[in-house]
Amino acid sequence: MKKEKHILLMTTGGTIASRQGTEGLEPGGPKELEQEIANLSAYYDVRVRDIFCLDSSNIRPDEWQAIAAAVFEERGKCDGIVIAHGTDTMAYTASALTFMLPGIDIPVVFTGSQLPLSHMLSDGPDNLRTAFAMAASGIPGVFVAFDRKVMLGCRSVKVRASGFSAFESINTGYIARVTDRGLAIAEENLPVCAGPAALRPEISKNVFLLKLTPGLSPAIFEALAEMGYKGVVIEAFGLGGINVLNRGLHGIRRAVEMGISVVVTTQCLYDSANLRVYQVGNRLLDMGVIQGWDMTSEAAMTKLMWGIGQGMTPEEIKKLFEISLAGEITL
Amino acid sequence: MKKEKHILLMTTGGTIASRQGTEGLEPGGPKELEQEIANLSAYYDVRVRDIFCLDSSNIRPDEWQAIAAAVFEERGKCDGIVIAHGTDTMAYTASALTFMLPGIDIPVVFTGSQLPLSHMLSDGPDNLRTAFAMAASGIPGVFVAFDRKVMLGCRSVKVRASGFSAFESINTGYIARVTDRGLAIAEENLPVCAGPAALRPEISKNVFLLKLTPGLSPAIFEALAEMGYKGVVIEAFGLGGINVLNRGLHGIRRAVEMGISVVVTTQCLYDSANLRVYQVGNRLLDMGVIQGWDMTSEAAMTKLMWGIGQGMTPEEIKKLFEISLAGEITL
Repeated sequence: MKKEKHILLMTTGGTIASRQGTEGLEPGGPKELEQEIANLSAYYDVRVRDIFCLDSSNIRPDEWQAIAAAVFEERGKCDGIVIAHGTDTMAYTASALTFMLPGIDIPVVFTGSQLPLSHMLSDGPDNLRTAFAMAASGIPGVFVAFDRKVMLGCRSVKVRASGFSAFESINTGYIARVTDRGLAIAEENLPVCAGPAALRPEISKNVFLLKLTPGLSPAIFEALAEMGYKGVVIEAFGLGGINVLNRGLHGIRRAVEMGISVVVTTQCLYDSANLRVYQVGNRLLDMGVIQGWDMTSEAAMTKLMWGIGQGMTPEEIKKLFEISLAGEITL
Repeated sequence: MKKEKHILLMTTGGTIASRQGTEGLEPGGPKELEQEIANLSAYYDVRVRDIFCLDSSNIRPDEWQAIAAAVFEERGKCDGIVIAHGTDTMAYTASALTFMLPGIDIPVVFTGSQLPLSHMLSDGPDNLRTAFAMAASGIPGVFVAFDRKVMLGCRSVKVRASGFSAFESINTGYIARVTDRGLAIAEENLPVCAGPAALRPEISKNVFLLKLTPGLSPAIFEALAEMGYKGVVIEAFGLGGINVLNRGLHGIRRAVEMGISVVVTTQCLYDSANLRVYQVGNRLLDMGVIQGWDMTSEAAMTKLMWGIGQGMTPEEIKKLFEISLAGEITL
């Protein structure tokens, strides 16, 4: 087989590259990854670039920026990029990179594993192979490859803490699956993305994810405003239900008046929030609350962080959420 | 057919009892519910008690107490109780009642609908029938009946905002399913519950659900302590990953030292958190953080609210989370 595709593997740490320490699994590049790279080199020209080595629970917006900058720098020098990453925050990183790299013109594919490569039964080799095949597909975008499925990064959610089928494509179809014909692309699920490619990494950390619970005191909105938050994503009940009795709406109105952008999604894993269905939702929309529709919380959070980081005004952010940048929302 | 079972239907509002208003769906008892009750009266002695009429987004701990008191009062006067409830916070109410009514000795079955009874294609009649069959089963406990499945209330989660298969039994099997043989009970999934039945409705509102996001400032713990919170359930990443770099652990340590009970669950819908697996998790356990294992966030929240409401000390709450009261945790 002619090795015509040049794939860059970026490593960032995670279970796929962790080893057994005295206090549990800890980051550390294993020999097994080198072996896997040697195996993959039979099919592709493989180059490796280590970005950092972190348990993904410790990956923050600073690291998203480091990865985005590296991807943008390398994009002219390879056909596709695979990013090995811890599974815990992979959906957040993949969503953030989607917005930081608008119009990205090569495949950028995140993958990882639930069991370290040092274990004979690790899902790592399989996941790496799927990710490499997607990286060689020529289809531009930011993706997650896991358990023989490929999905949009901005639609991915880690739904299983330990099961191998850890990621699902939420509220939209998979981009590709491994089949008996190899990697089968579902063209109908590809979003329309506009170029040219750009690096826009500025992102705000001042966005809070508020998962509603019954009886939650609306005082939290004041506290968040005092802490300097500029945006709040509310994971509401069901279709977007929010406790509105007993001053519940008052806190949200105050927050919006203070210039905080409030986006409402649902705490249900599947389906879309829709504030138009119930009486209370319509009152929220009148106040200036933004509909998150069927976005994942990870995508809504990172889109809001990105919008604020790009210096957008609350009015501009409202418009930002009325468009799909890379397939993150069904309109 | 001889009507030997006496079933009490309690109504609390919700879509199943809502009607189309000018601003969207709003609470209001429809004639269609009366028709359904008439239909069910062919099989059971049915009595109705209206508790209140609320969109379930507005149901708070006060309403949980009202429902629990009514159930306890009625339990000697009927064979089973069906509670019609909005779907949005049904999993929270069902979890809360599980703890407020230890050793409950009759079936208490929550149900509702995604489409109002006034619609010809409503799922309400089907859900009510399943709930009534479970209420007549003689199996004690607090359950949710939906889409031809019955599950433990303390294991139920609303996973779909609009789909009819709205509820799933998380990390444990269903208690019953509607089959071609009628209601088929899965005896092996029934938890062992100890009596005698009691009403213990005291519950604290001072518990916060914190869903982690990358880069979250640990200052939130201080803010929550200042707001008077006595408990925090952290929805961590994956198996229980928490951002520990940059003072992340410091905030949690301070909270625990201040007497706040901190329970760690996972933000993944499925599988169990296990802080023992990764290095950072072990450090949290050493600080006194409590493992939520495979509990739903709804169950972890209400169990913590209940433990604090019962006047338990942080040490007693720690022990409370090491036992299963009604099948809410796999040990």
